[in-house]
Amino acid sequence: MHAHPMIAAHPHVRGSTNDTLIRAVEECYGCAQACTSCADACIGEDMVQQLAQCIRLCLDCADICATTGILATRRTGSNEALIRAMLGVCEAACRLCGEECERHAGHHDHCRICAEACRSCEAACRDAAGSIH
Amino acid sequence: MHAHPMIAAHPHVRGSTNDTLIRAVEECYGCAQACTSCADACIGEDMVQQLAQCIRLCLDCADICATTGILATRRTGSNEALIRAMLGVCEAACRLCGEECERHAGHHDHCRICAEACRSCEAACRDAAGSIH
Amino acid sequence: MHAHPMIAAHPHVRGSTNDTLIRAVEECYGCAQACTSCADACIGEDMVQQLAQCIRLCLDCADICATTGILATRRTGSNEALIRAMLGVCEAACRLCGEECERHAGHHDHCRICAEACRSCEAACRDAAGSIH
Amino acid sequence: MHAHPMIAAHPHVRGSTNDTLIRAVEECYGCAQACTSCADACIGEDMVQQLAQCIRLCLDCADICATTGILATRRTGSNEALIRAMLGVCEAACRLCGEECERHAGHHDHCRICAEACRSCEAACRDAAGSIH
Repeated sequence: MHAHPMIAAHPHVRGSTNDTLIRAVEECYGCAQACTSCADACIGEDMVQQLAQCIRLCLDCADICATTGILATRRTGSNEALIRAMLGVCEAACRLCGEECERHAGHHDHCRICAEACRSCEAACRDAAGSIH
Repeated sequence: MHAHPMIAAHPHVRGSTNDTLIRAVEECYGCAQACTSCADACIGEDMVQQLAQCIRLCLDCADICATTGILATRRTGSNEALIRAMLGVCEAACRLCGEECERHAGHHDHCRICAEACRSCEAACRDAAGSIH
Repeated sequence: MHAHPMIAAHPHVRGSTNDTLIRAVEECYGCAQACTSCADACIGEDMVQQLAQCIRLCLDCADICATTGILATRRTGSNEALIRAMLGVCEAACRLCGEECERHAGHHDHCRICAEACRSCEAACRDAAGSIH
Repeated sequence: MHAHPMIAAHPHVRGSTNDTLIRAVEECYGCAQACTSCADACIGEDMVQQLAQCIRLCLDCADICATTGILATRRTGSNEALIRAMLGVCEAACRLCGEECERHAGHHDHCRICAEACRSCEAACRDAAGSIH
């Protein structure tokens, strides 16, 4: 991830980065990957029928994290209220997905790791939303 | 767009569709395309420097509309509060982008048409959010 | 879908549109929606375990169609070889997904409609690739 | 990025990972972020008109890298020819975007870092395509 040097080189940022927001960018890209991976792993499990809700929440969370990572990357010219609202939706998606994955963490390692990724991204989004005025 | 017959054939829907939500799905996909197109057209204009904010809002709006269209399509298994929150962000993104495009509508036909697409999608998202309980 | 008037208003197009490519844009957005919907419907079926491959091909096809629709929308400034290559991948993804959905068309209406959307998008991508020199 | 432990935990992988492909997954997510950031930085430069082609190639490359990262993450159930074809398109997109960014590397640090990210992702996609049989 080159998120920090890339954003620091932006003509409207010029080195004075919001590191809390950059951390959320990195967490969003990482969580999007983890959720995409967990959804596919769940689809491959014998007990897939019990994992239907987990698959859907993982797919939703992956899409929301990806868009939040893009918006927070492209933030300079954007409306800050919009980024804050998107970070709020992402925090909620990560909480829901993390709670669902947690339920299957004892049986499936991919759910255990994905739950950690979701909790970590949830916290980063909450911090980032608080850092934007 | 096959949104209506596809969603009507979903095993958890079985014909009793929420047509207000399906309309929002169609509007979101259409608005995502219009905003992607408007951003690229703005990049090709001679006065591109005056259109920087328009390009960014179009790119943000395109990404948010695409994700909202996917979430509202995949809604059956999802948390309704999450879809409602995402529809709210999309409504805000469309309002901001529509207002900015409106400012350039006299000079650029692509901004005029994109502003219409945004306003139409904004209304559809607001109606859809109200239709989910 | 405002694809035609939007692309016709682009400063580098100025009315002389490639209508075969615009049709592929519309098909790609439509097929992305259908495949997202079919994947979610398959996840909700009792026989979900037999539909695992169908779900994955639908998710792959949805992502590829979405990106192809965006690239073909934003084509003016892009390398035409890249768009042609992407249209080729999209044609292949639609063929694979359409064949898999076809196998379940007798049991599931969503697979039947999705197979039609895939075949239609496959043909539109093949035509569009041929229309770019 | 949790790509390695996530994919290693997949029921169809069970620890025997293709580490060359996992490296491509990580590079794709990282390059998608860098290209999104570079496009937005270019839009903010005074000389934006000279950067129009750079912005478009960055946006195309970001979208292609994102989809390739998802496909390569979700590979287990997918057709390997499709993943290989997508890795080929991604390699081409990264080469084109890297060459264009390289031209502006002397003036803009974001273009210099983005060119590095593109070259690194290009190599990873080529290696990964060769690792799939």
